[in-house]
Amino acid sequence: MNRPAPAPNLAYDRVRAVEWVEGRIRLIDQRVLPLHEAYVHLDTVEQTAEAIRDMVVRGAPAIGVTAAYGVVLAARDRYARSAGAWTEAIGADLARIAAARPTAVNLAWAIARMRGVIEAGIAGDPVPRLLVEAQRIHAEDIAANRAMGDHGADLIAPGSGVLTHCNTGALATGGYGTALGVIRSGYATGKIARVYADETRPWLQGARLTAWELSQEGIPVTMIADGAAAWLMRQGKVQWVIVGADRIAANGDVANKIGTYMTALAARHHGLRFMVVVPISTIDLATPNGEAIPIEQRPESEVLAFGGTRVAAEGASAWNPAFDITPAGLVDALVTERGVVLAPDRAKIAALMARG
Amino acid sequence: MNRPAPAPNLAYDRVRAVEWVEGRIRLIDQRVLPLHEAYVHLDTVEQTAEAIRDMVVRGAPAIGVTAAYGVVLAARDRYARSAGAWTEAIGADLARIAAARPTAVNLAWAIARMRGVIEAGIAGDPVPRLLVEAQRIHAEDIAANRAMGDHGADLIAPGSGVLTHCNTGALATGGYGTALGVIRSGYATGKIARVYADETRPWLQGARLTAWELSQEGIPVTMIADGAAAWLMRQGKVQWVIVGADRIAANGDVANKIGTYMTALAARHHGLRFMVVVPISTIDLATPNGEAIPIEQRPESEVLAFGGTRVAAEGASAWNPAFDITPAGLVDALVTERGVVLAPDRAKIAALMARG
Repeated sequence: MNRPAPAPNLAYDRVRAVEWVEGRIRLIDQRVLPLHEAYVHLDTVEQTAEAIRDMVVRGAPAIGVTAAYGVVLAARDRYARSAGAWTEAIGADLARIAAARPTAVNLAWAIARMRGVIEAGIAGDPVPRLLVEAQRIHAEDIAANRAMGDHGADLIAPGSGVLTHCNTGALATGGYGTALGVIRSGYATGKIARVYADETRPWLQGARLTAWELSQEGIPVTMIADGAAAWLMRQGKVQWVIVGADRIAANGDVANKIGTYMTALAARHHGLRFMVVVPISTIDLATPNGEAIPIEQRPESEVLAFGGTRVAAEGASAWNPAFDITPAGLVDALVTERGVVLAPDRAKIAALMARG
Repeated sequence: MNRPAPAPNLAYDRVRAVEWVEGRIRLIDQRVLPLHEAYVHLDTVEQTAEAIRDMVVRGAPAIGVTAAYGVVLAARDRYARSAGAWTEAIGADLARIAAARPTAVNLAWAIARMRGVIEAGIAGDPVPRLLVEAQRIHAEDIAANRAMGDHGADLIAPGSGVLTHCNTGALATGGYGTALGVIRSGYATGKIARVYADETRPWLQGARLTAWELSQEGIPVTMIADGAAAWLMRQGKVQWVIVGADRIAANGDVANKIGTYMTALAARHHGLRFMVVVPISTIDLATPNGEAIPIEQRPESEVLAFGGTRVAAEGASAWNPAFDITPAGLVDALVTERGVVLAPDRAKIAALMARG
């Protein structure tokens, strides 16, 4: 297929969810996109935890990268206060960042990796060494996304329609994207002809963020109400559902944005294929299955209001789990930077992880 | 169970989606609820068609009642212009109202019934006779809702949790409600202990209208994002999904608000029961199956915006079918004013209709 050459100013190069700029963390404020392209700067570990909790930054890999940089901020402060005792004092900071959100395991993973560097011993000012490690985590995530994009696109027949849920693009990762990376790669190579995106209530990551990323690159995207997905499938308009994840348990169960499970059920009913795209850092062998994954409950106001305006009648309450669990049995392909696992289960995931 | 006596000022008595007031149709403007309780008055057939198309009034039975009153407006105008030729001239008006929205068969049903009165012959001014018929349609709908409420509640075990979709209450009908009538009856008798409601994107009938009706009566309601329904079911929180419909085909296929089909699939997967509550006027033997039901496509802006504010990034398009089809095989109980049909199919529906 003939497609125009990629524009030089691709959104995933231009937009970074998180960057280290002049000794601070700079986040694009995802709460106000696409109406406003505003940035938030973080100087302290407290600000970092708050930004993660309030979803200035979201998306499991992007949270992990932010947490890594947050450890740099923590070390700078602790070292300035006590060059001798900083390695002990920083433990509380690591715990504070780790507690900001419970479901995405990349957060704990990034902190554990930074802790490993600290525990290996750093002579003198720890900031340069920890910054190198955080930037390495960041760069590895982008490289992983690129590899996943190619691996995932290889699975798709030319000219396919796909449906995605939530936002898994440059905004959710170090850059490029997990599921949206597969869509970027698949669209560039003609594998993907049509992209549908769930708007993804309550936070509207699909309408606000995925539509924004894809539109900036000239990839046509058609939004649907989340409840319309099964009817879309019934029309034969999509062949794959492609999503990211916040944690994959050892048995292959998938924690991802609320609505993923219902979409996976509908995909299986219609004989479509369901692809989960994650870096290895999202797979957690210490979590045996989906039941062991903590599901964050978010404020009721996210459901009862919209853009700050109350829509539900006064008196109504809301049940607002941020994530759900899709059983491994509903997953056709698990795509990582190390390659693809078809019909993932405990044994295949163990083998994948042992390869690393 | 001990429950407080019903409040004297019940929402379904106080609020009428449609009423005939001093020679005009009065509609509560459902586009602006619950923020504003505003009314729109209709004097002409053109205004009636426009109000139905723009969803000032919505809900299949309420549309049918409005259409019947619209025929009174049309007759008044045509008779004033020509006492001799009005019965011929009114044909264009009936067609205009019928074309306002395509999916809800109650619209065509109400017009056909009014046409029958016209064709039977009316001596002199037709308004009194047609108004009697429209008011009869209105009163019959309320009585049907009451009967359905009791029939449906009888199916439910005490203390159950239920999930509903869209709005099927006093606002969607002549009064009381179809699925919401079952919930009202079931809550009053202790059959229903917990009510969950899908917010029902894109138009938010659940958040705006169902929550409003239930809250006014002190029936606790918990809103969920539409995509959270399957995860709610997985938690064991609901035993029944209860919905209305815009048309039931002769084989039992159900056209209802977009998202119904996906919810029905999830209910079946979890072993829950799925109840569809409709007056007989919603069953259309002339439509053989769901494939023959026209599905209205609504404006893209309903998905891309929220409360008049654009939320999706510029450049994104939307696919916005207002309804979907739930195959009869996913329906456990079809509840009408004539009684209940379990596991409805073509033969059982034919028998139900022949009873009338």
